[in-house]
Amino acid sequence: MKPRLLLDPSPRTPAEIFAAPVLARLHERFDVVARGEREAEGFYAEHLSAASFLVGQPALDSARIRDAKALRAIINVEGNFLPNMDYDACFARGIHVLSISPVFAQPVAELALGLALALARDIPAAHRDVVDGVERYGLDGNAASRTLHGCRMGFVGFGDLGRAILRTFAGLSPRVLVHDPWLSAGLLAREGLRSASLERVLATSDVVHVVASVTDASKAMLGAEQFALMPSGSMLLLLGRAEVVDFDALLSACASGRLRAATDVFPEEPLPADHPARGTPNLLLSSHRAGALRSALFEIGERTLADLELMADGLPPQNCKRAERELVGRLRSKPVTRS
Amino acid sequence: MKPRLLLDPSPRTPAEIFAAPVLARLHERFDVVARGEREAEGFYAEHLSAASFLVGQPALDSARIRDAKALRAIINVEGNFLPNMDYDACFARGIHVLSISPVFAQPVAELALGLALALARDIPAAHRDVVDGVERYGLDGNAASRTLHGCRMGFVGFGDLGRAILRTFAGLSPRVLVHDPWLSAGLLAREGLRSASLERVLATSDVVHVVASVTDASKAMLGAEQFALMPSGSMLLLLGRAEVVDFDALLSACASGRLRAATDVFPEEPLPADHPARGTPNLLLSSHRAGALRSALFEIGERTLADLELMADGLPPQNCKRAERELVGRLRSKPVTRS
Amino acid sequence: MKPRLLLDPSPRTPAEIFAAPVLARLHERFDVVARGEREAEGFYAEHLSAASFLVGQPALDSARIRDAKALRAIINVEGNFLPNMDYDACFARGIHVLSISPVFAQPVAELALGLALALARDIPAAHRDVVDGVERYGLDGNAASRTLHGCRMGFVGFGDLGRAILRTFAGLSPRVLVHDPWLSAGLLAREGLRSASLERVLATSDVVHVVASVTDASKAMLGAEQFALMPSGSMLLLLGRAEVVDFDALLSACASGRLRAATDVFPEEPLPADHPARGTPNLLLSSHRAGALRSALFEIGERTLADLELMADGLPPQNCKRAERELVGRLRSKPVTRS
Amino acid sequence: MKPRLLLDPSPRTPAEIFAAPVLARLHERFDVVARGEREAEGFYAEHLSAASFLVGQPALDSARIRDAKALRAIINVEGNFLPNMDYDACFARGIHVLSISPVFAQPVAELALGLALALARDIPAAHRDVVDGVERYGLDGNAASRTLHGCRMGFVGFGDLGRAILRTFAGLSPRVLVHDPWLSAGLLAREGLRSASLERVLATSDVVHVVASVTDASKAMLGAEQFALMPSGSMLLLLGRAEVVDFDALLSACASGRLRAATDVFPEEPLPADHPARGTPNLLLSSHRAGALRSALFEIGERTLADLELMADGLPPQNCKRAERELVGRLRSKPVTRS
Repeated sequence: MKPRLLLDPSPRTPAEIFAAPVLARLHERFDVVARGEREAEGFYAEHLSAASFLVGQPALDSARIRDAKALRAIINVEGNFLPNMDYDACFARGIHVLSISPVFAQPVAELALGLALALARDIPAAHRDVVDGVERYGLDGNAASRTLHGCRMGFVGFGDLGRAILRTFAGLSPRVLVHDPWLSAGLLAREGLRSASLERVLATSDVVHVVASVTDASKAMLGAEQFALMPSGSMLLLLGRAEVVDFDALLSACASGRLRAATDVFPEEPLPADHPARGTPNLLLSSHRAGALRSALFEIGERTLADLELMADGLPPQNCKRAERELVGRLRSKPVTRS
Repeated sequence: MKPRLLLDPSPRTPAEIFAAPVLARLHERFDVVARGEREAEGFYAEHLSAASFLVGQPALDSARIRDAKALRAIINVEGNFLPNMDYDACFARGIHVLSISPVFAQPVAELALGLALALARDIPAAHRDVVDGVERYGLDGNAASRTLHGCRMGFVGFGDLGRAILRTFAGLSPRVLVHDPWLSAGLLAREGLRSASLERVLATSDVVHVVASVTDASKAMLGAEQFALMPSGSMLLLLGRAEVVDFDALLSACASGRLRAATDVFPEEPLPADHPARGTPNLLLSSHRAGALRSALFEIGERTLADLELMADGLPPQNCKRAERELVGRLRSKPVTRS
Repeated sequence: MKPRLLLDPSPRTPAEIFAAPVLARLHERFDVVARGEREAEGFYAEHLSAASFLVGQPALDSARIRDAKALRAIINVEGNFLPNMDYDACFARGIHVLSISPVFAQPVAELALGLALALARDIPAAHRDVVDGVERYGLDGNAASRTLHGCRMGFVGFGDLGRAILRTFAGLSPRVLVHDPWLSAGLLAREGLRSASLERVLATSDVVHVVASVTDASKAMLGAEQFALMPSGSMLLLLGRAEVVDFDALLSACASGRLRAATDVFPEEPLPADHPARGTPNLLLSSHRAGALRSALFEIGERTLADLELMADGLPPQNCKRAERELVGRLRSKPVTRS
Repeated sequence: MKPRLLLDPSPRTPAEIFAAPVLARLHERFDVVARGEREAEGFYAEHLSAASFLVGQPALDSARIRDAKALRAIINVEGNFLPNMDYDACFARGIHVLSISPVFAQPVAELALGLALALARDIPAAHRDVVDGVERYGLDGNAASRTLHGCRMGFVGFGDLGRAILRTFAGLSPRVLVHDPWLSAGLLAREGLRSASLERVLATSDVVHVVASVTDASKAMLGAEQFALMPSGSMLLLLGRAEVVDFDALLSACASGRLRAATDVFPEEPLPADHPARGTPNLLLSSHRAGALRSALFEIGERTLADLELMADGLPPQNCKRAERELVGRLRSKPVTRS
């Protein structure tokens, strides 16, 4: 008897996240019941009670969880944890609540590195200048260029993404300072890192990565006052959640020439056609493209299958991230669309 | 008695390469005679015979070298070795012939990394799209994007610059293959690297760094035939010397969509206004900006002073690169202008 | 109102694990009630119901857990998880069950490295030979010596300790193969490691680290048959649990000269006076000294305090290891005495 | 016409340094004339004038060098440079003077790591205690043990061997301080290292590696006064040349319990039977076994062949170390016997 698996990866499709051999293996090991186009209410009413595993993130209130007598794990393939589920009931029942968010860490970190170097060396404008026939050579073309080797690098928030960024920047040997109120200073020290206040991180970094989660405490935590602490000419990279930043204040800091910044996220997406970000100097723009690579989506399927197999064998999952009892209720994520 | 030092860093100026405290220290340790605007012939006729050290790369024929009875070192602050000097006479006399080229390795390597990521993630076009209001989000904006972690990386030539590139890419954990006919396979193996033929490097790399020196043997060594070996969609980065590549063939390979490339160098600089490179798709352009950073120029001064001090103390120089008796005559470098 | 903390670190003493300032801070943040010499039954009957945190690993059956209405975490300061607790009741209640075992990983890993090199270079015997005046110089003294750089290194089991060993051996650039049935191949691949069967690990490694946990499945998993697979002259390092190995078979393999081994653990401790291990050739001996360093014991206190502070602030613990619902019942650890 | 190669690796034998396929290749590329048992004077009188390459380190005065009209390189396979040659004449003639000393760096570095850990964890005595049935378990057996992760590590001298040691200790993440009067502070800084005075290195290191070359200036540079600067309980590792140390003072520092030391070298070798080093407490002994491994000797042959092939192809040698004009005359090495 194969364990029953409900497959409801909406807004993603099974084909987006499972390469053919992975999907084949999934069917081999599990009795897969896909929701497909069916309406959710009826689907879960019919199938949840006999399911051992659920791939998806539907609304599951206490009654639903109570009804899901055989359920052992919920794997959310969006990447965030939405406030649409009775998490405490899951924890009490020993149901693993997992997310595939780690698949995004590497592609996001690589874009962070690419954006940092694009800012530091003015790569997009220099390319444009050659295309337009107005390039300047050598030193004359490098007025604002700097190397990043040995730079002071700050992290505002230091979770999986921060760690991936740090690994990815390793070739530049940055000197690192971390602000993350969820982490012990001793933990960071054992990793060879130093902990500091938000103010100190901002005031003494050449490059700041803003990768904090959105909570009531972190919303708009970086505004005009904080940007004013940053050294003139320093760089801010925003690859986490836009809500952590007062976006208008960021635009002002860039426009004034004090900061250079790159962002992959915006307070509103799609960005309104007339949004001032589009014309702000010293601001490098990317349209929420950091994580959503074809290869990352297939890795969702691989990690999902790997953890399902471990759990079916009575072992703990290791490939996905677990919801933390203390944190999941603090997160203020928005649903993803199709990123 | 301070040793006499002739200072003739043309086409650079002393102020470009020596920060104030470095210049002060230079004067403290040495009896500095600067050529300034003076005509070279007369300057060397008057001063060379009593000089212990020369910073610069003037034409020095055998008679001049014979005349330079006290000369112990020539430090070329351009970065290449020009065929304007009787190198053998220098070697026979035990005169160190040095170049500050290592100062450029780190900034060039960082630009290589930035260009690689800009290509892999289409950073300049994605920025432009947001500015122009035509951006696409998430997966839709990532059709041609790929991650570089674990990619197969080839080197055509592997000197100081290749090594700096490898260190700088370390955070991406590339799997590396090297083609360099000047290096023993065993030497590479001891560094954990594998040696391969040019054909194999091209045929099995996702990213190829072309950083070979220009010699009669390497001129235009990469042409249509070689580019045809490269996997479709692979990337070529040209941060060394343009002469190593058949540039028209490179433009064709990019235009056809087979390759993506980035180049910091051109067969002719400045690039003619109507040069087809300016409009070639899949080609990222940089106007010989890789090395010429203010910080690199000051490092020229620091390394020059450091080696002068070592030599004045009777120790071997370590901060500059030494001309190799066997190689210096093979190099076909062109004079730098002001890069 | 400070949260109440029961302190019962037996068989360790509070002074052994808490340096003075750490203990002071503990009292500052918590209402500490120490069991001291008091009999356990009465102590827990009186204090458990009002306690938020418990440092220690007393027997806690279902009734006790039910009674512990305010309990939020149990921190076991021995390093193993004993079968003396209703773990499921803890999980259902959301009580964190933690262990300070990570403090031992670094000292154990360093001893592993020291023992490996001592075996590879015959350090103890060579010292003895000089003391005894019978030393041989140079090559003559190196008949059995080998370097470890680039060696093939196998792991049987790959948890926290395996990872610490791998980091600690990094300077020797080993080529690594891992056998651990609790880990996905994909997980290892993402860390740049390869997964393999036990047979393959044994048959193709120059150095094998045995660091698997003791379970019904792993008991005596390495015996004569397995040792016969290992290449002649290869090395086995036993720094985890002796029960994983058929110890007599290991002694035979060493005595025969096929293997060289080092062990820090024994099937019985103290080792009987006449145990044959004491005289076995090619076997390097250490008396369960790998982890029990003064500095590691104080790190127990630091990690304990750090996690208590996080939990008191409503955050998840990060400095100790969490019991895994699926694994804790499989472990067959014995109580520590004073290591 | 193959270039002629004189083979005179005394005191080593060709069979010791050339594995069979390497020797075969040597004969394939070169016209090898081996001295064998022949008396040197006659051999060189007959063969030197037509030789392109010489593997060995015979006495070569100015007349001999003058006579060696075709000579392009001398490869010394002992590892030091003896004062038995007119080096200046070689340099003037463009004859490469090379040594295979780099082959010893890795094995010596690994022994340094093994000795450091053996000292830090008292590995030899702990083994002996178990053999003798007097072992103590856990903390009781660890009175003098310490971990090395993150320790302060000093280098007195920092050449090839120092660098190999640093790489080999990388898994312990030491914080490094270097004293080497032949190196610029800037050079070290670019490698991420800090330069310091001898006094500061000694006073602030937990582990000191003494790997300086012997010169008139470095002879006995470390004596009672210097050892007194070292922190109580710190460790000294002597794997370079014994002459750098006042050996009696070192024995006293160990005997007093202030220092722990390990040495692979002695002022006199073989060590006299009644030498007090044999019984000195806190001193770990190794009988000049650090470099002389079978594998290192064969690497001599591989590097020698590799550089001969490069030079025969008109390329610079890269696998052996070059004599430095400024330093070779300062070295006070003694001939090796058979290490």
